[in-house]
Amino acid sequence: MTIKLHCFGESGNSYKAALPLALSGLDWEPVKVDFFHGATRSAEYLALNPIGEAPVMVDGDLTLAQSGVIQMYITEKTGKFGGATPDEARDVMKWVFFDNHKMSSQAGMLRFQMNFLPEEKRNQEVIGFVTARLKSALATLNRVLEGRDWLVGNGPTHADFSNCGYLYYPEPFTFDRVEWPNIDRWLDNIADLPGWKHPYDLMPGRPSDRGL
Amino acid sequence: MTIKLHCFGESGNSYKAALPLALSGLDWEPVKVDFFHGATRSAEYLALNPIGEAPVMVDGDLTLAQSGVIQMYITEKTGKFGGATPDEARDVMKWVFFDNHKMSSQAGMLRFQMNFLPEEKRNQEVIGFVTARLKSALATLNRVLEGRDWLVGNGPTHADFSNCGYLYYPEPFTFDRVEWPNIDRWLDNIADLPGWKHPYDLMPGRPSDRGL
Repeated sequence: MTIKLHCFGESGNSYKAALPLALSGLDWEPVKVDFFHGATRSAEYLALNPIGEAPVMVDGDLTLAQSGVIQMYITEKTGKFGGATPDEARDVMKWVFFDNHKMSSQAGMLRFQMNFLPEEKRNQEVIGFVTARLKSALATLNRVLEGRDWLVGNGPTHADFSNCGYLYYPEPFTFDRVEWPNIDRWLDNIADLPGWKHPYDLMPGRPSDRGL
Repeated sequence: MTIKLHCFGESGNSYKAALPLALSGLDWEPVKVDFFHGATRSAEYLALNPIGEAPVMVDGDLTLAQSGVIQMYITEKTGKFGGATPDEARDVMKWVFFDNHKMSSQAGMLRFQMNFLPEEKRNQEVIGFVTARLKSALATLNRVLEGRDWLVGNGPTHADFSNCGYLYYPEPFTFDRVEWPNIDRWLDNIADLPGWKHPYDLMPGRPSDRGL
């Protein structure tokens, strides 16, 4: 049965699940969540995910929310991307949690503020605050990637797929690859994987659909 | 060998690991991280955890960072708090990720801004923004706890220990238990567990040590 991923192109959190699905060889298809028209607040969507967020994965009778949980399920099904040893598996989870706590949460918020909120609602104080927090997370990531091709072990894992979630988007959110040479090189490593696609090519929906 | 948890009383992220350690029956002891004097930025600490955060757990040769990873390890060692079935285990992880992404991240930031930053550095625009985001996470939590004693299954799990991480602290951060009756009842359920302790009684360090 084809796995369905409820997602949308603008969602880096969705990309964190869609990218390993695409690279895993599993049979899957995206189902567009019409986030910008309030779809995640509908009763139907809340029945699927009471947290009211994308992505949600449906595989037969099983419904999973939170990209980190979907990533763990992909590893369970395929043996891929979860780390090669128990130590690596814990290290993968460490970086997936870091991403959820400090990286994507800031990057996603900042990109939303700076691009998708109506201009009169954008708050420069908030943008400044989140920018500083994102910079701190990027500095950590850039530091640990010194001399390394991947965050954990010798190949791609969910640690990479989680932390890169928002970093391929073209909209300005104060992240400039040239300032972070190790991140820049690592993003190229991920993009060179066979089957890699940009979030706007992997999932339905992009800002130009909304005239942006 | 006694497990060591590098932590400090003010850290809700540390509490998320210390509380299940305390309730698990494992032999452990807290080691104070002098966060307010910059301990997490020292070279020694960064060698322990390149992310530079508390908590860090050391069990013999094994060093783990991120509360969610330490929680998984406690389950691995004891079989406790990880959910009774594979479906429950995935649900536990869902709520642990939700906490890291949307709950503790906002609550911790807000409590820091409102209490531990020097008054001249507090930013009311940022406080307002984070307050709204925290309220949204609390609304989700309160809604899913309707008619339930625990977030997952019929007993306490890391889903509970993670999401309650900042919710017992007395410092004002816009969270008032009387506004959230289901959260209020659930916090009492957790506090009634044999061996439960308040974060300031479980871990070394509290604001009064710094004259606050």
